[in-house]
Amino acid sequence: MILIRQEIGDVLRDFRQQKGQTLRQVAGKASVALGYLSEVERGQKEVSSEILAAVAEALEIPMWAIMRRVSDRIAVLEGIESAIPDVVPDELVASVGPELSLR
Amino acid sequence: MILIRQEIGDVLRDFRQQKGQTLRQVAGKASVALGYLSEVERGQKEVSSEILAAVAEALEIPMWAIMRRVSDRIAVLEGIESAIPDVVPDELVASVGPELSLR
Repeated sequence: MILIRQEIGDVLRDFRQQKGQTLRQVAGKASVALGYLSEVERGQKEVSSEILAAVAEALEIPMWAIMRRVSDRIAVLEGIESAIPDVVPDELVASVGPELSLR
Repeated sequence: MILIRQEIGDVLRDFRQQKGQTLRQVAGKASVALGYLSEVERGQKEVSSEILAAVAEALEIPMWAIMRRVSDRIAVLEGIESAIPDVVPDELVASVGPELSLR
C-alpha cells in the first residue's frame, strides 16, 4: 500500500536539504515542534494541512510543487514513471529555483 | 492559507461523481465510515494515508492521479495555472478513463 505520508515526508526532507537548512531552522520558521517535523519527514506522522502549509512557507516552496513531486514519486511507485514527461517549463523552474526540477 | 485537505476532498468527490458512485458505495468498498468519508470530501477532516489509499482503490483511480489533480488545483489557487501545461499523454488518459483528463 502506498502511503502518502511517506512520500510527503521524503519530499519535504529533499526540499529542505536542497535549501541547505536544518530541521531546527525549518521547525523554528514554521513554528512546529522539532520532533514532530522529524517524524513527518520520516513518514511516521500524518501532517495536518495547516502544518504542511506552514512548512511549505518556511521552505519557500509553493504547495503545488510539493504535491506535484509527491504525485511524481507515487507515479514511479505505481509503475508509470515513463508515461509522464517532465514538463514544468524551464522558465518557471528558473523563477523558483533549481530545486523545482522534478527529476 | 491553502489547506490540502480541502483540495483532496474536492478531488475525491469529483472522481466519485465522475464514476457515478454514491458516498455509501465508496465508503462500503473502502471500509470507511460514511460520515467520515463525507467529512473528508467536505474538507472538514484530514484523511489518513491508509484511508486515502483505500478510497483511491475503491474509486479505481491511481494515487498519482489524485495527487496530480490536487497539485493542479493548488497551482490554480497559487495563481500559476497558465504556466503548467496539461501534459498527461492522451494514450495514458485513454487507458485509465476520461476522468483522468486534468482540465
